[in-house]
Amino acid sequence: MTVQEVDLLCVGAGGAAYPAAFRLAKAGKKVLMVDPKGVMSGNCLYEGCVPSKAVRETAAFYQDAQRFQPYGLGGNLHVDFAALMQHKDAIQERRYAQHAAELAAEPLIRLIKGVARLLDPHTVKVDSDAGTDTYHARHILIASGSDVFIPPLPGAEWCLTSHDLYKPSPAMRALPEKLLVIGGGYIGLETATFFAALGTEVTLLQKGAQILNGMDPGMVNLLLPLLPKGLELRTNVEVQRVENTGSGRRVVWLEDGKEQNQEVDAVLLAVGRRPVIPEGAEALGIAFDHHGIQVGPSLQTRFPHIYAAGDVNGRVPLFHAAVRQSLVAGHNILAGNVPTDYADFDHVPTTIFTLPAAAYIGLTPAKVSPGSLLEARYAFSEDSRAQILERLDGEIRLFFEPGSLRIRGAWIVGIDAGSLIGQVGTAIAGGMTAYDLARFADQHPMSAEGIGKAARNLL
Amino acid sequence: MTVQEVDLLCVGAGGAAYPAAFRLAKAGKKVLMVDPKGVMSGNCLYEGCVPSKAVRETAAFYQDAQRFQPYGLGGNLHVDFAALMQHKDAIQERRYAQHAAELAAEPLIRLIKGVARLLDPHTVKVDSDAGTDTYHARHILIASGSDVFIPPLPGAEWCLTSHDLYKPSPAMRALPEKLLVIGGGYIGLETATFFAALGTEVTLLQKGAQILNGMDPGMVNLLLPLLPKGLELRTNVEVQRVENTGSGRRVVWLEDGKEQNQEVDAVLLAVGRRPVIPEGAEALGIAFDHHGIQVGPSLQTRFPHIYAAGDVNGRVPLFHAAVRQSLVAGHNILAGNVPTDYADFDHVPTTIFTLPAAAYIGLTPAKVSPGSLLEARYAFSEDSRAQILERLDGEIRLFFEPGSLRIRGAWIVGIDAGSLIGQVGTAIAGGMTAYDLARFADQHPMSAEGIGKAARNLL
Amino acid sequence: MTVQEVDLLCVGAGGAAYPAAFRLAKAGKKVLMVDPKGVMSGNCLYEGCVPSKAVRETAAFYQDAQRFQPYGLGGNLHVDFAALMQHKDAIQERRYAQHAAELAAEPLIRLIKGVARLLDPHTVKVDSDAGTDTYHARHILIASGSDVFIPPLPGAEWCLTSHDLYKPSPAMRALPEKLLVIGGGYIGLETATFFAALGTEVTLLQKGAQILNGMDPGMVNLLLPLLPKGLELRTNVEVQRVENTGSGRRVVWLEDGKEQNQEVDAVLLAVGRRPVIPEGAEALGIAFDHHGIQVGPSLQTRFPHIYAAGDVNGRVPLFHAAVRQSLVAGHNILAGNVPTDYADFDHVPTTIFTLPAAAYIGLTPAKVSPGSLLEARYAFSEDSRAQILERLDGEIRLFFEPGSLRIRGAWIVGIDAGSLIGQVGTAIAGGMTAYDLARFADQHPMSAEGIGKAARNLL
Amino acid sequence: MTVQEVDLLCVGAGGAAYPAAFRLAKAGKKVLMVDPKGVMSGNCLYEGCVPSKAVRETAAFYQDAQRFQPYGLGGNLHVDFAALMQHKDAIQERRYAQHAAELAAEPLIRLIKGVARLLDPHTVKVDSDAGTDTYHARHILIASGSDVFIPPLPGAEWCLTSHDLYKPSPAMRALPEKLLVIGGGYIGLETATFFAALGTEVTLLQKGAQILNGMDPGMVNLLLPLLPKGLELRTNVEVQRVENTGSGRRVVWLEDGKEQNQEVDAVLLAVGRRPVIPEGAEALGIAFDHHGIQVGPSLQTRFPHIYAAGDVNGRVPLFHAAVRQSLVAGHNILAGNVPTDYADFDHVPTTIFTLPAAAYIGLTPAKVSPGSLLEARYAFSEDSRAQILERLDGEIRLFFEPGSLRIRGAWIVGIDAGSLIGQVGTAIAGGMTAYDLARFADQHPMSAEGIGKAARNLL
Repeated sequence: MTVQEVDLLCVGAGGAAYPAAFRLAKAGKKVLMVDPKGVMSGNCLYEGCVPSKAVRETAAFYQDAQRFQPYGLGGNLHVDFAALMQHKDAIQERRYAQHAAELAAEPLIRLIKGVARLLDPHTVKVDSDAGTDTYHARHILIASGSDVFIPPLPGAEWCLTSHDLYKPSPAMRALPEKLLVIGGGYIGLETATFFAALGTEVTLLQKGAQILNGMDPGMVNLLLPLLPKGLELRTNVEVQRVENTGSGRRVVWLEDGKEQNQEVDAVLLAVGRRPVIPEGAEALGIAFDHHGIQVGPSLQTRFPHIYAAGDVNGRVPLFHAAVRQSLVAGHNILAGNVPTDYADFDHVPTTIFTLPAAAYIGLTPAKVSPGSLLEARYAFSEDSRAQILERLDGEIRLFFEPGSLRIRGAWIVGIDAGSLIGQVGTAIAGGMTAYDLARFADQHPMSAEGIGKAARNLL
Repeated sequence: MTVQEVDLLCVGAGGAAYPAAFRLAKAGKKVLMVDPKGVMSGNCLYEGCVPSKAVRETAAFYQDAQRFQPYGLGGNLHVDFAALMQHKDAIQERRYAQHAAELAAEPLIRLIKGVARLLDPHTVKVDSDAGTDTYHARHILIASGSDVFIPPLPGAEWCLTSHDLYKPSPAMRALPEKLLVIGGGYIGLETATFFAALGTEVTLLQKGAQILNGMDPGMVNLLLPLLPKGLELRTNVEVQRVENTGSGRRVVWLEDGKEQNQEVDAVLLAVGRRPVIPEGAEALGIAFDHHGIQVGPSLQTRFPHIYAAGDVNGRVPLFHAAVRQSLVAGHNILAGNVPTDYADFDHVPTTIFTLPAAAYIGLTPAKVSPGSLLEARYAFSEDSRAQILERLDGEIRLFFEPGSLRIRGAWIVGIDAGSLIGQVGTAIAGGMTAYDLARFADQHPMSAEGIGKAARNLL
Repeated sequence: MTVQEVDLLCVGAGGAAYPAAFRLAKAGKKVLMVDPKGVMSGNCLYEGCVPSKAVRETAAFYQDAQRFQPYGLGGNLHVDFAALMQHKDAIQERRYAQHAAELAAEPLIRLIKGVARLLDPHTVKVDSDAGTDTYHARHILIASGSDVFIPPLPGAEWCLTSHDLYKPSPAMRALPEKLLVIGGGYIGLETATFFAALGTEVTLLQKGAQILNGMDPGMVNLLLPLLPKGLELRTNVEVQRVENTGSGRRVVWLEDGKEQNQEVDAVLLAVGRRPVIPEGAEALGIAFDHHGIQVGPSLQTRFPHIYAAGDVNGRVPLFHAAVRQSLVAGHNILAGNVPTDYADFDHVPTTIFTLPAAAYIGLTPAKVSPGSLLEARYAFSEDSRAQILERLDGEIRLFFEPGSLRIRGAWIVGIDAGSLIGQVGTAIAGGMTAYDLARFADQHPMSAEGIGKAARNLL
Repeated sequence: MTVQEVDLLCVGAGGAAYPAAFRLAKAGKKVLMVDPKGVMSGNCLYEGCVPSKAVRETAAFYQDAQRFQPYGLGGNLHVDFAALMQHKDAIQERRYAQHAAELAAEPLIRLIKGVARLLDPHTVKVDSDAGTDTYHARHILIASGSDVFIPPLPGAEWCLTSHDLYKPSPAMRALPEKLLVIGGGYIGLETATFFAALGTEVTLLQKGAQILNGMDPGMVNLLLPLLPKGLELRTNVEVQRVENTGSGRRVVWLEDGKEQNQEVDAVLLAVGRRPVIPEGAEALGIAFDHHGIQVGPSLQTRFPHIYAAGDVNGRVPLFHAAVRQSLVAGHNILAGNVPTDYADFDHVPTTIFTLPAAAYIGLTPAKVSPGSLLEARYAFSEDSRAQILERLDGEIRLFFEPGSLRIRGAWIVGIDAGSLIGQVGTAIAGGMTAYDLARFADQHPMSAEGIGKAARNLL
């Protein structure tokens, strides 16, 4: 059997893999991606951000439609969950087709549906339906992503995961009347609000005291009361077990020392994700822990030619962070494994796509010592666009370095939070100050007015 | 009669006036605003951006609802134009109430419903219902705005203007079946698309060859084919007269040398606006032409203590430009009429709120000599969010200084154009480069991904 | 007696006072400065940066001349200390004359030689040769500076201070053969090196273990071995007393538990400076400690209209920091005591004008936790200009935020350190990154090449 | 004969070649440089910036010494021209040794003394003492630099060029009493001032009306009167011939229609440089004119893998521009000949190293239409450091985009012009504004104070 040569072998074909692959191919390099799904875009498209946002946008639209009825739209709308799921499936299909076309147009990249094992620092075995092949890779990009974490919970097998819910052609085609979500991280909370907005009665159980644990409490505490009615959040709860009742599921938990339970149509188990460490990495001495493979901003492991990008390194488990990291790895590979580009783990815009959304970036008060950030605020209640949309809740909070007034972070809850955090992120990327933001004529009547107005409050 | 002293007298109380007024009051200065409407916010709130956007958002929502029906929302919606107008009125009422509260909370600012005449560089007569008073003003801010221009067209009196359409409690309470718009500037085109989206059959007549004359043809030509069906655009047309047919209006025009005509329910006359020069300005030797009062970036007239901001100077007739200019004037007044802040007329984000919208900022190819800008593109057809929303048309075009790759301008047609141009504008305000934009991890799946992706196409 | 009104009363007329005074006068405001010296520029010109630099430049020149003799300049030079002191005096005279002319040209500013006492938040008594006057001040700027701190050391009266050495027409007109400096702060060390370079035998005694205590040890340790021969540094020394021997001074100290002594021609006592708190400040409840009056970046005390700028607030006791702070205060006064400008205490370029100089700005490793800054280096030994000047010692160290590569600080020892730190400071002020610095074509053959080269080492 | 493979073949080994070579070697690529001198650094080190600056610094030092004598330095200095030339030679030797060591430490780079001919887009013949070899190059970097242009002037053979003057071990070992320079470009003018400062009587003849033709007249007109006494500038002069008089040279020229002549010890012919186009380039269809090979910011010729950097492309014939361009080419090669880095030809700091120096960058008034730049000034006569050095002449002029106040260019004449333009250049590279510059606390007493002060004049 011949050993085949590639310039880059990507373990995975998701957002942490394919940007580097295409960048290298553009430079004339030969790339192999190995992915168990056999398609590009990883879990983001398969069961993550894209399909969940498809559900979300319909839920948001339904919510808006109810809100807008007094404002010039008569008639009525009702949720057609089967059609919604079909729409979600169609988007996934379209993107898979688009990715397939991109791949077909790039002869230097090959994607194998299979599993990769690292044999030595330059040798990778690939097991696929076609058998096992061996590749000699000048560079390796570990981009194997993460998987849903299934805890040792009795009855976990009766629960759905985000995979079950969002994957192409999922089983659920009717809107459940009652849904219970175990886990108050962003995946659990987002899904809980989508269903609540669509009309499901949702209970969310969180082990600890804070929903969205680890995020700025100021932001979280502003967000939670704004979530859709029909969503009940219970914290400090210890789930004991999940039972199959035949017609549904019963979840039993301890709360305030007492056992409680609820019967629902479906249970979503969303207590976290874990990195997928490829076979062979440990034997090669590539360091990792339960967060993922340890890398710095150059994304190199102990082997300068072996990189780890995306969820598998656990630094910023978001698709767009993975894309940027993939390009960093790609650039460093092209530069001969000499760091020439660096991932900035600390300034990645993040949106919690609840309804309404919350978003943040960079330093916020909870991360620093008191007094080390200067705060500027804007309330959407005074915002023209918010008033036009009748969505008056929420705030923009910007955080500046005192003295220089350089912007270091922000959080936003309310309308357009996701796009506004992008604009703030651009300002952070540009090293801009409150002076700069205050001088810019943000448009009227648009929610970005609040960025300039907040900055002007300091000036 | 006693002459009353004020630190600042604002001729007008709109977006070019009140930000300066409140900034000065915050600094302990006494301010008088004189406005014929007797309320704050000028034409923007009275008949401009806010009410038109109220109509627009409902129209957009109706358009989206039709598009979204296959994607999970059954049932149906129909336009209730009377409710829509009531919604528009309610927003205006709410904002007027908010402004009244702001005013009531600031004892140093007084707003008189009346008309101001400049007698000498520091003396202003104010005619109001209470009679005529004379004020000695340490500083004067001319912020008298602009008005609809009514050309000498036979039958112009049978036409509506944007004032008639958007003012509080307008006469039109039912959706016209047919509407004819005279004038292809942004006001005419925006309104034409709103009505078309709501179901009206709309014809727009433009004198010259280009709709949105003066804007980048690349942008305009991409936009026009995406406008709602039911909107017919006719260019190179000479309108002859408008007649009252009793049941409606007949518009007669010359096209290709032939007279043509159309009978419609209503005609919107939207051929431009003209600055409102306050009485007395000419006698004081304050220079102006048909664009407005001539000022540079410090907004000072020939008298260092007399400023002209907003539409009246004709530089950038947009509310947010006026707000920024008002603050520039306010800052310079506080600084003792020594220029200390400057308005940047050349980098104001501008959105044409058609459906879809188009937006631009700074330098675009039509403004410069060939080859002096490096272009980067992104098509929404490949955009995740565009696909989720099923709105695949449109593009982002970014323009960079070759060599430095500093971003100098952009235009965008399609989803989120208005908010995206704000993010690009922030980058311009920060003096950022394509390198900076490419390194920023724009969020997925959001349309701002296109900004980073476009920049990466150069790198 | 009439109370006189002023818009601003400055307690002091130094670098923390007059920039605000002139800015306000430019805006038409009436200003009174009260200063015990009766001249502008405070201790900087009287006994600080300007005269010391006059001595320094001649010392540097003499040092260079010796170094350059083999490189094309025959003949010889010798120090003429009396002429040097005359030169120093002449520079001071010229600048005083220049300042007097500036003052004469500005009728809105008055400078009184006298002492100010705060009576209440708006009333200031001024004692001068003309008697005592009372002023009502709309705003007060406390800019009373700092004075040499004289510790309770027996025989302190036999020591010189920097005041004695650098003031106009100082007593010392001949170069001492032996000089002992008590205090290893920057004033003591600078003066020690000037005299050593001019040919004096100098001993410097420092109480603690580190010369230039509080500065980054990496920088200090690189600097010290490069200082002129003839300069002996002794640390961990406890000075006991100074005696007048008639022909000179004897300094007695404890070192390693043993008493030691040295007889020298002169002793410079340079163990620090203390803020000059104006009379009445304490009674008004204006908070201060031994560092100075407590203010934040807006420079306001508990009274929004009373500011403290410069050495008196102890934040960054440097003339250029005072100038910037003075302008911040001035801007905030003009803005009606609403913070509108902020002093950035954390990013002020600082040069130790030793021979060679050392300079720093912002964050350096000693101020942060390990690993939180990414370092880039450049050694002058490889520098073209350093080689041309035969001055190969020293380094540039730049410190970046990992990930973003935003520049956060630097230190430099060697040629052009003072001007190079200014260029780095500009980059910090602009929020620039290593990428930006690396792309800029720093000139050849100039020492600034090292900035770009250091940055490129990361890329 | 075997064809040898290299990743990169550099035609030349100067500043446009070796940075790319070392960057590629760092990335593991094999590089061959072919240079007729057989050493690194090209004409800059051989006969350009480095040796001329060695002469310059001694001349400057001698000038300063004379100026400083009244200020504390007795004795006297005289020029020892032979020692000066020896110093110059020593610097060159040191740098050649340093470069040799760098080369020796990098086994992936080979430097051949020889001449390269392009045979086809990937094949290069190299003629050297060892014979002729053929190389297959994956990429080619044309970095063949420029040469002194010798015009068809009768007697040109009796003139020296900058090559003759500055090369290692030049013939001239004694200071000429009289020197005539033909050509008023920066090379001619710099050399003329060095000799004038050293004591030579110098006449400079310029064909056209402006010395430093092509540079901003405002800057040039301020500079010329400050040049050393003993330097006579004659413009609008047509040189007819140069004669060998035995003891010296006679130059005959037409001026105002009359023939004039002068006998001098030596004549420097400095009427420009021309690109050195490698043999074979024309046959390959690589476009060039008398300025050089035509390239855009990516530095690629019509062959994406063949680059032209440095003087040979004629864009910015300065060593530091060449270094940056070399890296741009190197980065683009590593990126697979996909443009990923761009040279900014328009913002390269440039210093005319006359005594005093003049420096400029970016846009200056002469390059743009009137009114399109906002100017800010600072005169060194008010500068503390200038006063300390008794060098009061000169100015800083900064040029900003009106409105945004973004800095677009500058020129500076006087002390520290060269380092100050670097600081301004950093601000330009950072996209900074006058607001940013004004907020930065430039150090006192240093000439960079003028940058902030100039900016503050606008604020």
